Amino acid sequence: MKKILVVLPVEQRHKDMLEAAAPGWEFLYALPEQVSAEQVAGAEVIIGNIAPALIAGASELRLFQLNSAGADAYLKPGVLREDVLLCNATGAYSKAVAEHGLAMTLALQKKLPLYRDGQNAHVWRARGTVTSIADATVLVVGLGDIGLHYARMAKALGATVVGLKRRPGEKPEGVDELYTTDRLDELLPRADVIFSVLPGTPETTHLYTAERFRLMKRSAVFVNCGRGSAVETEALRRALADGEIAAAAVDVTEDEPLPPDSPLWDLENLLITPHVAGGYFLPETFERIVGIAAKNLALWLDGKTPSTVVDRKTGYKK
Amino acid sequence: MKKILVVLPVEQRHKDMLEAAAPGWEFLYALPEQVSAEQVAGAEVIIGNIAPALIAGASELRLFQLNSAGADAYLKPGVLREDVLLCNATGAYSKAVAEHGLAMTLALQKKLPLYRDGQNAHVWRARGTVTSIADATVLVVGLGDIGLHYARMAKALGATVVGLKRRPGEKPEGVDELYTTDRLDELLPRADVIFSVLPGTPETTHLYTAERFRLMKRSAVFVNCGRGSAVETEALRRALADGEIAAAAVDVTEDEPLPPDSPLWDLENLLITPHVAGGYFLPETFERIVGIAAKNLALWLDGKTPSTVVDRKTGYKK
Repeated sequence: MKKILVVLPVEQRHKDMLEAAAPGWEFLYALPEQVSAEQVAGAEVIIGNIAPALIAGASELRLFQLNSAGADAYLKPGVLREDVLLCNATGAYSKAVAEHGLAMTLALQKKLPLYRDGQNAHVWRARGTVTSIADATVLVVGLGDIGLHYARMAKALGATVVGLKRRPGEKPEGVDELYTTDRLDELLPRADVIFSVLPGTPETTHLYTAERFRLMKRSAVFVNCGRGSAVETEALRRALADGEIAAAAVDVTEDEPLPPDSPLWDLENLLITPHVAGGYFLPETFERIVGIAAKNLALWLDGKTPSTVVDRKTGYKK
Repeated sequence: MKKILVVLPVEQRHKDMLEAAAPGWEFLYALPEQVSAEQVAGAEVIIGNIAPALIAGASELRLFQLNSAGADAYLKPGVLREDVLLCNATGAYSKAVAEHGLAMTLALQKKLPLYRDGQNAHVWRARGTVTSIADATVLVVGLGDIGLHYARMAKALGATVVGLKRRPGEKPEGVDELYTTDRLDELLPRADVIFSVLPGTPETTHLYTAERFRLMKRSAVFVNCGRGSAVETEALRRALADGEIAAAAVDVTEDEPLPPDSPLWDLENLLITPHVAGGYFLPETFERIVGIAAKNLALWLDGKTPSTVVDRKTGYKK
């Protein structure tokens, strides 16, 4: 019997959804930390991220549906056979990550991390002027589902929104100006807020260099909810320590977990969250992932193309 | 010569605005901490809050234009003669305070204060599930300028917004449901977010009792950007310590500055900012205050009623 391995913390209703999409198939369920080589070996379909090292044993694999938006771990040479159809969960995280990014943005504008520190020291002391999202020019670097969701929220709060994406396209609603990412250096000097949500690919690695932080306004706030690899860590540290930008917030770092002795931890004007913008921390995200998986499974079994196939060259949805 | 005392940190352009509104009058300028009894004694108009104790010597005073929205300090018996026209700066703070309140709301929903604490301890650790403003029912208690600005932002982010105000009125745009404040107890159990922005009046004193915190959802977040007097401090402390509500954020406390030994400081699920939502921390606020003062001055000199006269009985704009 053809086997589908589901490596997700599903409840019964999720099983029902998935099994309804593939009548006649045998479903195996496992948690990511408990999945066995034997389960992997027999599966023609795997739903959910498994350790890249386990992939080599997936000799029957034809469809691999990730629960993540990022596919970088599986795109490295030799990890996944070329004939396996790889799908991601693009879209599932947009609301969670965009809202987390907006919360970080407003927290920086209103200096909430500094006030939290003051609170912990029992000190009632004002920390100077603040800025307004309504008056801000917000540069969204990476206008995929997450970037667009964030852009629309910023726009709804009154911001002027400039979007950057890899490929030219029609300007979506909620974005005032749209450019391709190669215009980054021209646009950084205009931005009061830079919200970056780029996937981890060779092209995005170390995009944010010392030079680029210097192109930003000294009053700018920089928020990274994409991949830590997009930022040169030492350049960010220096830009913050030297006041080249006002403040930053990162949900992702080059090394994760961030090592306990990293100099980033103690920067007063940097807010760090431990890669929690996405995940399943907003319960709706998991529901969306199961929905995407069930839909893609049905399309694939029907001989059609799933909606979130990853382009192995770019790491993006095709 | 008729004298106007301006107790504000004005620049030349502000002086030009004010003086253009009252040709032929003599203008005196002082900073709040430097104002003299002699300056106060001769002024028919005072623009800017001065210490209530100085008011007794303002024998010529006819128009008193506050730079604050709250007028509570001047409404106590014996402070201000009944024949003095009292105006506040309602409207000047709406953007600053509403945005600060929204930043606090999202910070609580995304657990940013907990992550800041983790950062300070160099700990990379997830802190569990988060909530979404888009899915929230937001109860705005006090639907004046600030409350309405906040309501509209919450609505723009997808929330269901329920507004409460003292007097019945037409439901404004950006509010899904409107009730009078006496319906508070019915509505607290429905709210995921409670944003309170009530002025300090006898009616609002200790509105938030232990009973009312118990009426809130255990998952609710409570944000107070009005006056600290609206909250029974011990009831808030207990509600947070016992998990009767999920989290709270306050920009105001019953005693200000909050005493160093207050038990509020160390509540992990409480975020405290030191009465900075308003003030002049958003530079635009000060521009708005000067604009209101100039407009009111011109109206008053023209024999008309200024736009922000305070009702001495309620403490609100008439």
